[in-house]
Amino acid sequence: MSLEDEVVASFAEAKNARFREVTTSLVRHLHAFVADVRLTELEWAGAIDFLTRTGQKSDERRQEFILLSDVLGVSMAVIDVNHPTAGNATESTVLGPFFVHGAPEFALGEDISAGAPGTPCFVEGSVTNTDGEPIPGAVLDIWQSDEDGRYDVQYTDLDGPRGRGRLRADAEGEYSFWTVRPQAYPIPDDGPVGELLAAGGRGPMRPAHVHFMVVAPGHRTLVTHVFSSDGAHLDDDAVFGVKRSLIIDFVRHEPGRAPDGRELAVPFHTARFDVVLALDGNGNGDGVGSAGWDPE
Amino acid sequence: MSLEDEVVASFAEAKNARFREVTTSLVRHLHAFVADVRLTELEWAGAIDFLTRTGQKSDERRQEFILLSDVLGVSMAVIDVNHPTAGNATESTVLGPFFVHGAPEFALGEDISAGAPGTPCFVEGSVTNTDGEPIPGAVLDIWQSDEDGRYDVQYTDLDGPRGRGRLRADAEGEYSFWTVRPQAYPIPDDGPVGELLAAGGRGPMRPAHVHFMVVAPGHRTLVTHVFSSDGAHLDDDAVFGVKRSLIIDFVRHEPGRAPDGRELAVPFHTARFDVVLALDGNGNGDGVGSAGWDPE
Repeated sequence: MSLEDEVVASFAEAKNARFREVTTSLVRHLHAFVADVRLTELEWAGAIDFLTRTGQKSDERRQEFILLSDVLGVSMAVIDVNHPTAGNATESTVLGPFFVHGAPEFALGEDISAGAPGTPCFVEGSVTNTDGEPIPGAVLDIWQSDEDGRYDVQYTDLDGPRGRGRLRADAEGEYSFWTVRPQAYPIPDDGPVGELLAAGGRGPMRPAHVHFMVVAPGHRTLVTHVFSSDGAHLDDDAVFGVKRSLIIDFVRHEPGRAPDGRELAVPFHTARFDVVLALDGNGNGDGVGSAGWDPE
Repeated sequence: MSLEDEVVASFAEAKNARFREVTTSLVRHLHAFVADVRLTELEWAGAIDFLTRTGQKSDERRQEFILLSDVLGVSMAVIDVNHPTAGNATESTVLGPFFVHGAPEFALGEDISAGAPGTPCFVEGSVTNTDGEPIPGAVLDIWQSDEDGRYDVQYTDLDGPRGRGRLRADAEGEYSFWTVRPQAYPIPDDGPVGELLAAGGRGPMRPAHVHFMVVAPGHRTLVTHVFSSDGAHLDDDAVFGVKRSLIIDFVRHEPGRAPDGRELAVPFHTARFDVVLALDGNGNGDGVGSAGWDPE
């Protein structure tokens, strides 16, 4: 028996069939990788050191293994496997490390920036099913960076959430909110993942985007971003999260009246993002199970 | 372009061609793994958590990522790639986590156990090249567990090395030493690797063995063990290190005269292990480069 077969066979007594399936594939690919590149002992030792430091760089505020998964496109591959494009439903992309449970609730039209620095930006849209029927009461979690490219949780001196909120679509399935225009930003690159990017001749930048998680009973939970069409790094997102259908225009306006009637003394932007949710494939109507993420 | 191709292309500017080669293969296998098993988001999150804890379990006395590599057979695969069987040369196996630089020197025939508990055991053999010619002065590093299955470095209360020593073969390439008979032992299983073994229905045991590292100018450095033919776990070594050619008899004797003339009042064992070193393939005669391990 080959070494590889011997290792696979060692998991034969695993009680969980899915565990056996996953470990078998993992072992086959790991052994094929070692054979394909004829991994040297010094490279192996370097890999052990790299992985160890990746674990040790992680804490409550930093998850270096998620970053590693992100920059190797593994996070996005997992999204694609679990959220295949479903007709005209809005496409999914990575959750990222900055989602926070229990974001503050806002009424429609309110400002979720909570003082985050940046150019004012009005965002509106609808939440419908794939037949174009509105989904009243759909819950939207929104989060984004400020004009310095930083999320609230990356500051240590804030009193509360900023650029983060939860809304409910109205009876027509419409939503709207004020925020600040998002900016491109680098993923944290002062750890092992930064070394990997540098060795690969790659940059750490992500294009400007706003995160959405949209939940409605009977529908697949959507985790996605919208990207600004005029921003940099749409073609070299460090985490491979960009999909063409998620790129929208953030339209610049001179000072004056905004779509909601508000008068602004400074330039502002507007954007429209219509969300289309697929039916929940498992038919249990909990809106969560099929996505794997529990937004509560 | 597929996501996988996009990730591979992102490394195109890497300056080091070997780095590009290794990352390309790594990305292709990681993405194939995700697609093959259709990894769920909860499984992905579990993997992130497992890898993070594996890094955080490691410190100066414990290397959990090496254990993980060991129990997945990856360490042994790397050995096989870098130390293919060379004619009648002694086969290699894993270094393991218990090698220590600078072991104490012993004269031939001395006792390296230094008080380690166990049944006395006399080991002797020759060091030759593949043509059977002796290699005088070959340096042998020996290390092993005691009768409780523990290495000196696993104790916190020892004054110095125990069951560990360095010898030099004599003018005829012969060596001998006293030690204690090795015992089977479990690899550390109180961490993430222990969870993996438990989920896989696998045990943590390694069969009884003595480690050898043999170095001689002009020859490939040999890192190997010998295993006792009458011990348990030869068929289910937790780290897949057993090779048939490395199994030898530890012969039991009643109290009396040992091969070196010593009189023993207790039962003892004897074993013979003849080491055959391959020529150093790179021809530089340093005896190290081809192995990747620097024993000094």
